[in-house]
Amino acid sequence: MSFDYQSAFENALGAVHREGRYRVFADLERQCGRFPAATVHLEDGSTKEITVWCSNDYLGMGQDPRVLEAMHGALKHVGAGAGGTRNIAGTTHYHVLLEQELASLHQKEAALLFTSGYIGNEATLSTLARLLPGVVILSDELNHASMIQGIKGGRCEKLIWRHNDVAHLEELLAALPEDQPKIVAFESVYSMDGDIAPIGEIAAVAKKYGALTYLDEVHGVGLYGEQGGGVAERDGLLGEIDIVEGTLGKAIGVMGGYIAGDAVLVDAVRSFASSFIFTTALSPVLVAGALASVRALKEGQELRALHQKRAAQLKAALTERGLPVMESESHIVPLLVGDPVHCKGISDRLLHEYGVYVQPINYPTVPRGTERLRFSPTPLHTEEHIAHLVDALDELWAMCKLAREENTPLHLAAQ
Amino acid sequence: MSFDYQSAFENALGAVHREGRYRVFADLERQCGRFPAATVHLEDGSTKEITVWCSNDYLGMGQDPRVLEAMHGALKHVGAGAGGTRNIAGTTHYHVLLEQELASLHQKEAALLFTSGYIGNEATLSTLARLLPGVVILSDELNHASMIQGIKGGRCEKLIWRHNDVAHLEELLAALPEDQPKIVAFESVYSMDGDIAPIGEIAAVAKKYGALTYLDEVHGVGLYGEQGGGVAERDGLLGEIDIVEGTLGKAIGVMGGYIAGDAVLVDAVRSFASSFIFTTALSPVLVAGALASVRALKEGQELRALHQKRAAQLKAALTERGLPVMESESHIVPLLVGDPVHCKGISDRLLHEYGVYVQPINYPTVPRGTERLRFSPTPLHTEEHIAHLVDALDELWAMCKLAREENTPLHLAAQ
Repeated sequence: MSFDYQSAFENALGAVHREGRYRVFADLERQCGRFPAATVHLEDGSTKEITVWCSNDYLGMGQDPRVLEAMHGALKHVGAGAGGTRNIAGTTHYHVLLEQELASLHQKEAALLFTSGYIGNEATLSTLARLLPGVVILSDELNHASMIQGIKGGRCEKLIWRHNDVAHLEELLAALPEDQPKIVAFESVYSMDGDIAPIGEIAAVAKKYGALTYLDEVHGVGLYGEQGGGVAERDGLLGEIDIVEGTLGKAIGVMGGYIAGDAVLVDAVRSFASSFIFTTALSPVLVAGALASVRALKEGQELRALHQKRAAQLKAALTERGLPVMESESHIVPLLVGDPVHCKGISDRLLHEYGVYVQPINYPTVPRGTERLRFSPTPLHTEEHIAHLVDALDELWAMCKLAREENTPLHLAAQ
Repeated sequence: MSFDYQSAFENALGAVHREGRYRVFADLERQCGRFPAATVHLEDGSTKEITVWCSNDYLGMGQDPRVLEAMHGALKHVGAGAGGTRNIAGTTHYHVLLEQELASLHQKEAALLFTSGYIGNEATLSTLARLLPGVVILSDELNHASMIQGIKGGRCEKLIWRHNDVAHLEELLAALPEDQPKIVAFESVYSMDGDIAPIGEIAAVAKKYGALTYLDEVHGVGLYGEQGGGVAERDGLLGEIDIVEGTLGKAIGVMGGYIAGDAVLVDAVRSFASSFIFTTALSPVLVAGALASVRALKEGQELRALHQKRAAQLKAALTERGLPVMESESHIVPLLVGDPVHCKGISDRLLHEYGVYVQPINYPTVPRGTERLRFSPTPLHTEEHIAHLVDALDELWAMCKLAREENTPLHLAAQ
């Protein structure tokens, strides 16, 4: 009897269904110029007007006229696609200009584009591991799947340090031979909790033990720092970071990823990373859009301030009703539900009854018992949007008899 | 003494330089509507008008008015980026429609988009390996880097069969337990040699031993078959292929990748593949362009015929001068140089003296001693373009005193 493939796939999917984590994608039609408004196509064929509350287009740059104009212009000027790998006919002048712009944004010598932030992490970490014989990568326990994939792919030694625990990181570093190559890999903003790494302390410890510092700023780029260079720029720490990894698909509003660092390091990744070398280059249309967006965000101080204000307003409004907003230092506003069925149920009712789109975040994305709704207020969400959302949540919380927090720390409400 | 990272990177790059395989990217500016014409930005800051002869935009769909119109329309309608992963706010109605269109193109139940063809292969093969306990993947020895990456990532048993050697494949299959899950992974068109796999024979052997068939059609989609479904469509073999993998970045002219197959298999990949789940969705602008392109190419019989005609004309013209065109059954025209220094040198002189852009293909992309120039004629290359190219090569061949083939098989000249 030959193997029954169909049953194997059905069984695997059955387990996902049973654990309540089968994903159904919301079929959205954003309305350019009206974001966060969008139309959702429902399974019965009907449509519904909704407000998007969980987009990573954190500043609405995906509909910024300067970005759109640049993309229309590139489409007219050079067409749709790159037509090849970066080496074989796929490098356009836009790629060259954007890499220069990103290097400058992070105060580095060079930058390199990837087709996604995922590949940026995977390609860079796996390649560094292969180029540094005997390297050990010290990885924050909550690092993103793409960093984990890169570290696995590099087949090097890996040590996990407790999340944002600098003392633990130092303990691990101190136990390693002085001349062993080391990479300390971490994120600035952790997107499921919204907390921010103590970048300065981590970098100081890393440097003390001669380690390279690798900082994933995908949830920081465009949003923090005078020029939008991320949390490391805000904190004046760019000089302490050897490799900054970022994305063009969140605050920049387009798509793609990149690293910035020393010229020789970037050149080495460029020359050895399989998933960079053997892949069609980013479409010049995307690159032109990202270039316009990065440049616009260098002047984006007001937009960033309004973004932080809206996040603080949402946190305060949730706190006022005793809704269990999780302690977040960033623009990300997670609301604890603590149960996968309620989490999915509230998300469904928000969509169908209140026109609010927020995806439930369940295990394995977050630990069991910490199931949550994760809101991303943007500068384009109004105070009315916030009031509508909080009213809706208040009603659903009452209906589902979910726990409230009467003693939410005041510093959250005041943020 | 702590580790000297700079020297490690310099040493790695030094080896690349010494082997003559350091890549310098040509900084191109395509001119939409005038492709294969483009402007190259040279290192001294000057520019030069050239003809691109090595693009994978095989049909020039990257400048097709229908594709551009669809992309302008999507930009205006929904904006620049998807704004999230497919699960969290990143699925647009364009994604849903394109997945339906691609499933239909390959006569399958379902399709799934990826941010690149590289990720399509990596994600699918590694996920299938994890979902099918004890699976062995039988891989053609010339499979693309992305398939190798996927197989490695799946950490399963792997058997390599000699390129396009069905007897060897059968020998390996026959030695395996009947009930062991098996995947036979191969490509339709091998892009460095231009040869085409005996898909029917491979599929028949695979089915005889109860294996799934996985066919990479990235160099076939849009170019072969009545509707542009690829070589498997042309040969009436879509029913024998379980998983078709394709790209939106070559003949389709845009960017991205996909698989098509049974609904349950596609759903399993969708639900378990890390590099699919945790990455920002393809920009709706790209998806809209690809959708228009796939639809246009369903009616692209004349374009496909002209493409094959131009390839045959180029092969014949090269053969006539005794230039050592390699035996290719496809639209890809490789010309053997057999020496890395000459290969790079001729490519440089073609660019600077003749305005012809073709990238040299050296080790490790191809075996040492088989260094080559690889031409991709498109329907937009004219007979004048071909004459100019062949004259230039003729002169350079004489200048470099490179070998000619007086006895080129006639069937090539007649193709």
